[in-house]
Amino acid sequence: MESFAIALDAMGGDHGPEVVVPAAIDALKRYPSLRLVLVGNEESLERLVASADHRVRERLSIRHTSQMVGMDESPAVALRGKRDSSMRVAIDLVKQGTAAACVSAGNTGALMAMAKFVLHTLPGIDRPAIATALPTIQGHVHVLDLGANVDVTPAQLVQFAVMGSELASAVDHKAAPRVALLNIGAEAIKGNEIVKQASALLTDTELNYIGYVEGDGVFMGEADVVVCDGFVGNVSLKTTEGVAKMIGHYLKLEFGRNLATRIAGLVALPVLRSLKLRLDPRRYNGASLVGLQGIVIKSHGGADGLAFTHAIDEAVKEVANDVPSRIRNHLQQRLQAKVAS
Amino acid sequence: MESFAIALDAMGGDHGPEVVVPAAIDALKRYPSLRLVLVGNEESLERLVASADHRVRERLSIRHTSQMVGMDESPAVALRGKRDSSMRVAIDLVKQGTAAACVSAGNTGALMAMAKFVLHTLPGIDRPAIATALPTIQGHVHVLDLGANVDVTPAQLVQFAVMGSELASAVDHKAAPRVALLNIGAEAIKGNEIVKQASALLTDTELNYIGYVEGDGVFMGEADVVVCDGFVGNVSLKTTEGVAKMIGHYLKLEFGRNLATRIAGLVALPVLRSLKLRLDPRRYNGASLVGLQGIVIKSHGGADGLAFTHAIDEAVKEVANDVPSRIRNHLQQRLQAKVAS
Repeated sequence: MESFAIALDAMGGDHGPEVVVPAAIDALKRYPSLRLVLVGNEESLERLVASADHRVRERLSIRHTSQMVGMDESPAVALRGKRDSSMRVAIDLVKQGTAAACVSAGNTGALMAMAKFVLHTLPGIDRPAIATALPTIQGHVHVLDLGANVDVTPAQLVQFAVMGSELASAVDHKAAPRVALLNIGAEAIKGNEIVKQASALLTDTELNYIGYVEGDGVFMGEADVVVCDGFVGNVSLKTTEGVAKMIGHYLKLEFGRNLATRIAGLVALPVLRSLKLRLDPRRYNGASLVGLQGIVIKSHGGADGLAFTHAIDEAVKEVANDVPSRIRNHLQQRLQAKVAS
Repeated sequence: MESFAIALDAMGGDHGPEVVVPAAIDALKRYPSLRLVLVGNEESLERLVASADHRVRERLSIRHTSQMVGMDESPAVALRGKRDSSMRVAIDLVKQGTAAACVSAGNTGALMAMAKFVLHTLPGIDRPAIATALPTIQGHVHVLDLGANVDVTPAQLVQFAVMGSELASAVDHKAAPRVALLNIGAEAIKGNEIVKQASALLTDTELNYIGYVEGDGVFMGEADVVVCDGFVGNVSLKTTEGVAKMIGHYLKLEFGRNLATRIAGLVALPVLRSLKLRLDPRRYNGASLVGLQGIVIKSHGGADGLAFTHAIDEAVKEVANDVPSRIRNHLQQRLQAKVAS
């Protein structure tokens, strides 16, 4: 693979450069054709990269910025007033072609607003969506939108389906990913109007649309891509985190109950560790802002080094498979098919 | 406590009388003032109750019906055509005052339609909601709506909040249950309009409204009552089931990996069993159709004996604490306060 650069918002997230720089150094060791641009306060960054091996250091550049976007700052304020922030400059580097992608652990709203403003959406996409992979009993599933779009139209859900399908196809190398719409109970009063209309539209597309999936089916691996509005997607994502945390809490509690259970816990520890590793949310860190003319990856704000590394991995995968071009081509072909018919 | 009767739709659910009758006998043993009316096919029911102890048998009556509501039947069709179904007659018994509550494991849509038609909603309630308890790290939380109302208004969310608050207060004996609205990420683009307007309305009520809670906060026990529309609630409920199932799947897989892990699994088995028991969805079976002039409990369609027993327990608790009257009084007081002001 040819050499390529990724820009990292080194000041974003709860931990800033302390987490970003070690993750960057680790990524450079693993990807020999990767170059990284650390965007942020030069002085702090220089100090942190000082100890890096020279073979790594020569593929690491620093781009000084004077501003930072706060985690609770309003997107509109950040967009207007933070043109020399680490977040904004990282996105600008993608726009200029200096970087093939950028990664930020900063404020989601500000990142989305800046990315939309600087990079624009792809032709045929009204609004970008946030996509992430979640574990299932069969591997993983790509879910979108996770919070960028609270109110959506049926046509927008179809756009999400196209973006999700191309994302899954690109990074998982699947020819025809199974795309499903998230809907409610087979026996309850079914669905809402928007989901029903989106389903009718999806049946007419070239996508491998398999129909509805319910909240539990998502984790049974019934689909490769699950499409929903950002409100439902965000609640679902957070519910997943909450349930996993609660089960972890009770596992600890039950194993800590008395001497016998503590001994059982020691015996079971390696197994419980591999379970934890398998479902470790850090392994799923790195949500994709899809639908833009460029690759923007959002890391969890509280990400540690391992988690941030996975966000960089996601960026590398999307660069290697040129996800935005795939989405663009897909939409163009559809448009041409419509014109021809 | 005075003697009271509960009507059971004995033909509902995937297993019908085979599950309902043993659960009924078990409940009668535990509640000496309880009487049960088994509604369904007399012949099948007589055969199943034949072996019951006479002290139990004398508190068990059978009400023959000739029809059944299918699990996939349309609510409208069931409402029009199934007036002698076990589901409908069980609800009729509540209307007539013969039973203080009814329990059904049948088709949710049909149960909701029939219950609304026969019992009517309480004054001040536009539409009933489905409420259930879910485990949290601090105990449990009541969540509503779980699928009856896909599209809601802010005022309806406030009604759900009143119903949930009275339900929690009645069955958990809490003076001022903490009520929250389910919303999305603090750092994402926040909330939808309906949730925001409901929040403004709730701030002005006498309820102990604590603001927004996110999907993960639900399971951290941040609130006693969580209010959302039926689409989001249903996805969240099913997501909970799916994640728990997935974690169970991987626990089994990891413990089954090799001889050493299988031995570790044997050692850990009692602990894992008590974890499973603690989070056993059967313990949380029995959703409440709140907002009606009568108590209607929905059991999971696939419920086994233990699960159905918990649904009867829920009915007993709601009868003992007269949940509908509490909701009615709450709404009346609010109306009077408005008139007075």
